Amino acid sequence: MHEPLIESVTTVRVNYSETDQMGVVYHGRHVVWLDIARTEHLRQAGFSYRDLEAEGVRLVVTDLAIRYRAPARYDDEIRIRCRLSDVNSRRVIFSYVLETVMDGTRVAEAETTLLCLNRGHRLSRLPDAVIRALGGAPQS
Amino acid sequence: MHEPLIESVTTVRVNYSETDQMGVVYHGRHVVWLDIARTEHLRQAGFSYRDLEAEGVRLVVTDLAIRYRAPARYDDEIRIRCRLSDVNSRRVIFSYVLETVMDGTRVAEAETTLLCLNRGHRLSRLPDAVIRALGGAPQS
Amino acid sequence: MHEPLIESVTTVRVNYSETDQMGVVYHGRHVVWLDIARTEHLRQAGFSYRDLEAEGVRLVVTDLAIRYRAPARYDDEIRIRCRLSDVNSRRVIFSYVLETVMDGTRVAEAETTLLCLNRGHRLSRLPDAVIRALGGAPQS
Amino acid sequence: MHEPLIESVTTVRVNYSETDQMGVVYHGRHVVWLDIARTEHLRQAGFSYRDLEAEGVRLVVTDLAIRYRAPARYDDEIRIRCRLSDVNSRRVIFSYVLETVMDGTRVAEAETTLLCLNRGHRLSRLPDAVIRALGGAPQS
Repeated sequence: MHEPLIESVTTVRVNYSETDQMGVVYHGRHVVWLDIARTEHLRQAGFSYRDLEAEGVRLVVTDLAIRYRAPARYDDEIRIRCRLSDVNSRRVIFSYVLETVMDGTRVAEAETTLLCLNRGHRLSRLPDAVIRALGGAPQS
Repeated sequence: MHEPLIESVTTVRVNYSETDQMGVVYHGRHVVWLDIARTEHLRQAGFSYRDLEAEGVRLVVTDLAIRYRAPARYDDEIRIRCRLSDVNSRRVIFSYVLETVMDGTRVAEAETTLLCLNRGHRLSRLPDAVIRALGGAPQS
Repeated sequence: MHEPLIESVTTVRVNYSETDQMGVVYHGRHVVWLDIARTEHLRQAGFSYRDLEAEGVRLVVTDLAIRYRAPARYDDEIRIRCRLSDVNSRRVIFSYVLETVMDGTRVAEAETTLLCLNRGHRLSRLPDAVIRALGGAPQS
Repeated sequence: MHEPLIESVTTVRVNYSETDQMGVVYHGRHVVWLDIARTEHLRQAGFSYRDLEAEGVRLVVTDLAIRYRAPARYDDEIRIRCRLSDVNSRRVIFSYVLETVMDGTRVAEAETTLLCLNRGHRLSRLPDAVIRALGGAPQS
């Protein structure tokens, strides 16, 4: 029996397409980084989102909030620390801290709420094994 | 003397690159639509963000929040209604409602806070004419 | 009976997310503009790519070539003139000229080859009505 | 004295935002992967494109050609093998092979031509050290 994963750490490197003419990363790119971090968080907890989706599970973002603290720049490595704030059988809330690898400058904080849908895009239950691996209690 | 602009309306059409394999618009694209709506809001208020930037004014997003209500789909026309929630000499808060043109389905609501920076990326004052056109009082 | 459409014209306005830190449009964005222009070309020829896809027709890009002539910039309006270079029952070649609306500066030329696939992602025939509307001969 | 780098290998993992509603990677994303591969190629040859740009060197894509062979899919790892086809003092041509890490399926081949510009966006010479590291002869 595994301990639930407390915090995952994922690193991305900023590519040129992510910059804008202000000379920093465009603020919409952070949304993609959060997505990458969620996928890696699930992987580190023992699940492939690709496989979950093949089984008919869809995790859909319903709420997104980002506070930008400092710019990220071209070629920077950005570390995304991801935790589960809350999980129940139908809803998962992830929170994130983004910081530069070089000196730990806080780039942003963020939170996303996801609902579990089935193939027919109707509200559904997360598989119990996923809830447990993420640190939740399946009966909730 | 113009009345300040109350609400701007901007329409975008969903292109194929904006969809994802769930068959709907990827949730990160809404961030770009908000940006487009802000630019058009300023234009309708009589200002070009391009010109403002050339004069050394930068409006930088510090907070972003989106609540997703319904999926947007390929080739849909999406109407973005944009208002100023608050404006003072250094900070502007825009709020947005996104809905389909076809039947008015609410796609999302959002809010963004922007700070005014100068060329040197330091906190700065918005030009008085911009504050007035957006419905704020320059002395604030 | 309609004349086949010779050339379509589509206009896009550059948004901030499309720029990069060189202060111009990132060269990958032109690919999306070509896609938008194809969709509008089909629409002007009387077809909705969304409907075609719903009927099981998929047009998949197999070859892409772009020659970049001049930078496009934030807030520029870019006109995309699109023509069919060749069409037969399984393959369509579009060619494009991109230019600024302001003064007609040539931004790029491009060509894309698309194959027609069915729902099962196998090589398939374009519907005859589409071939005719695009200026091809169905028996080819 | 180093041998010039013959071939660099860079790996990217497909994230959700890169897929489209056909269930595969959108064909415009490959352009970004080529860009990432070029940056890594330069790094493996001993140069940081970030530093070169800080010194006033800009490498601008003037020609892009991609042949798509097979779809890339969500969560796939894609290997990009990158070589210099030609280099002289003002122009660099990179060629690329993209393949899945899992079983080596050929995803695409591509070629990009880049010109060297200076800070003022005028045609310029690549630094000799870069030309040599890439396998070219500076006097050319």
